[in-house]
Amino acid sequence: MKKIMNLPENFVAESLDGIIKAHSARLMSPDKEHRIILSKNPSPHRKVAVVTAGGSGHLPTFLGYVGDGMLDGCAVGNIFASPSAGKMYEMIKAVDRGGGVFCLFGNYSGDSLNFQMACDYAALDNINTIQMTVKDDVASAPAYLSDKRRGIAGLVYAYKIAGAAADDMLSLDEVASITDEALHNIKSIGAALTPCIVPEAGKATFTICDDEIEIGMGIHGEPGIETKNLMPADTLADTLLDNILKEMPLADGDEVSVMVNGLGATPPEELYILYRRIFDRLHHMNVSIYMPHIGEFATSMEMAGCSLTVFKLSEKLKKYLLYPANTPFYTSLNK
Amino acid sequence: MKKIMNLPENFVAESLDGIIKAHSARLMSPDKEHRIILSKNPSPHRKVAVVTAGGSGHLPTFLGYVGDGMLDGCAVGNIFASPSAGKMYEMIKAVDRGGGVFCLFGNYSGDSLNFQMACDYAALDNINTIQMTVKDDVASAPAYLSDKRRGIAGLVYAYKIAGAAADDMLSLDEVASITDEALHNIKSIGAALTPCIVPEAGKATFTICDDEIEIGMGIHGEPGIETKNLMPADTLADTLLDNILKEMPLADGDEVSVMVNGLGATPPEELYILYRRIFDRLHHMNVSIYMPHIGEFATSMEMAGCSLTVFKLSEKLKKYLLYPANTPFYTSLNK
Repeated sequence: MKKIMNLPENFVAESLDGIIKAHSARLMSPDKEHRIILSKNPSPHRKVAVVTAGGSGHLPTFLGYVGDGMLDGCAVGNIFASPSAGKMYEMIKAVDRGGGVFCLFGNYSGDSLNFQMACDYAALDNINTIQMTVKDDVASAPAYLSDKRRGIAGLVYAYKIAGAAADDMLSLDEVASITDEALHNIKSIGAALTPCIVPEAGKATFTICDDEIEIGMGIHGEPGIETKNLMPADTLADTLLDNILKEMPLADGDEVSVMVNGLGATPPEELYILYRRIFDRLHHMNVSIYMPHIGEFATSMEMAGCSLTVFKLSEKLKKYLLYPANTPFYTSLNK
Repeated sequence: MKKIMNLPENFVAESLDGIIKAHSARLMSPDKEHRIILSKNPSPHRKVAVVTAGGSGHLPTFLGYVGDGMLDGCAVGNIFASPSAGKMYEMIKAVDRGGGVFCLFGNYSGDSLNFQMACDYAALDNINTIQMTVKDDVASAPAYLSDKRRGIAGLVYAYKIAGAAADDMLSLDEVASITDEALHNIKSIGAALTPCIVPEAGKATFTICDDEIEIGMGIHGEPGIETKNLMPADTLADTLLDNILKEMPLADGDEVSVMVNGLGATPPEELYILYRRIFDRLHHMNVSIYMPHIGEFATSMEMAGCSLTVFKLSEKLKKYLLYPANTPFYTSLNK
């Protein structure tokens, strides 16, 4: 296990400590173990706070999106594990301005159970909350079971829209409503070439042959829809895009944003080779791309692979996508 | 070889095509093969243009720093290979505003030979140029042979300072002078845990055992100063920092910027564990850190490992470090 770390049991605590030390001008943590990360100078205009939570090992997801224009806070769990309901509750109390707290997170059972409990506690303090789960991974369950689908890189677009809506001074219901509209138009699918190693476990999350690729692999190594022989980048791009278009057809004149996300060990050069094909396919359909995101947005430590997310835009969603944002891990100056 | 690509011989051309397609609002290329990448809307205030050149496989280095506040242009070679003198010359001609062109690049023989030739051609067109090489890698040669040292991640700080100096409307000589001052205060050293694979070669650049780390490894797999058993992150941080402090001692009250750079496959979580130790060491010495850079700035495709760069600041260098910059791969809003 070739990791740069001290004791495996300190992996998360020490990486969080490093993050707070690096970004102390913009992030703060009310707890000694840094399991709650808050924006230090949240927008004074927001009525609604937007928060998330999730396990470690996916940087910049989740805590990397805490900051101007995106999240007010994030509760942080161990590697690939939900944080506790207690930490989520503490975070919700810390960020509420009286306008309520929008809890936006990936559709994983631990996170969902704990957020439910945290919001129940918050209700006793008269804090309004709305919970919404991101379920963008089309490979994780068939369309008729879409409530079972997992959240992957599409989370980032959801944070962007919810954060911009909050910056636009919308109410809790309105922030939830526009984010829900966004989520119906955000579809993703991933592909993995190698597993990753959880520090405390010390062994690979799954095995895959040297000439194989797993289409639809989850970011915690959840099984995909099929294992195939390694294929050319253009064929991979087509496979991912076609799986998304099957559920969310695009037509002449449509506008989208596209995210080609690296899972950890895949170089940017390879992500741009994929993007090239996606661009050409969409261009041929006369679909316009706004603000393409190419890079590492939601990772699985040192896993090699990628995911594709397509976000179909309305005028309103486009406006919020283009709102400025500035966090330690994500900066957009578009307006 | 698990790479997301089509034909290996098209790897560079297709990744460049993807980059231009993704960032067409900010980058442009005057040649069909995109071997010259130019900033589309360079600052109208600059008298001097700042350019670089280098091989592919190191994204965001080199071309990722073309854009507002940093480089006017970059000539791009094949994987780990210098671009041609012809492309460099063409770039110099394209960016000159009459105030001269500052050519700032890593100290590699191919790049140096070709830039010399390109600048000789440019002189025939009455274009003033100054060439300066970055030699920040303290592991690549002893101090008494510092002219033989290679340029690694310290290049990014050099681009930042030269770009800010150009934005501050300094003359060619002045831009060169402040960049030279910066380079005397920028020291780096890397460590590799795994090799990477050049697409057209199809095999690893070197071999290293499962329980070993190579201290001082170059970004093309050049041998380091020693191969050691894998060590705790804090010991690695100390080893890297001590090698730098040996040449560039820091004292109570000094101000620095610090870059903890990932070589490709090392997750951000691990880079922050390293940063934590660097922060604690410098804090203990009463040395202040400005604008820490933690992430992937100069990579070797899918190589696992890291580099540490320390940049000792004067008031003037700090001012230029904090100047805003905005390229497709690097954004800083500090001012």
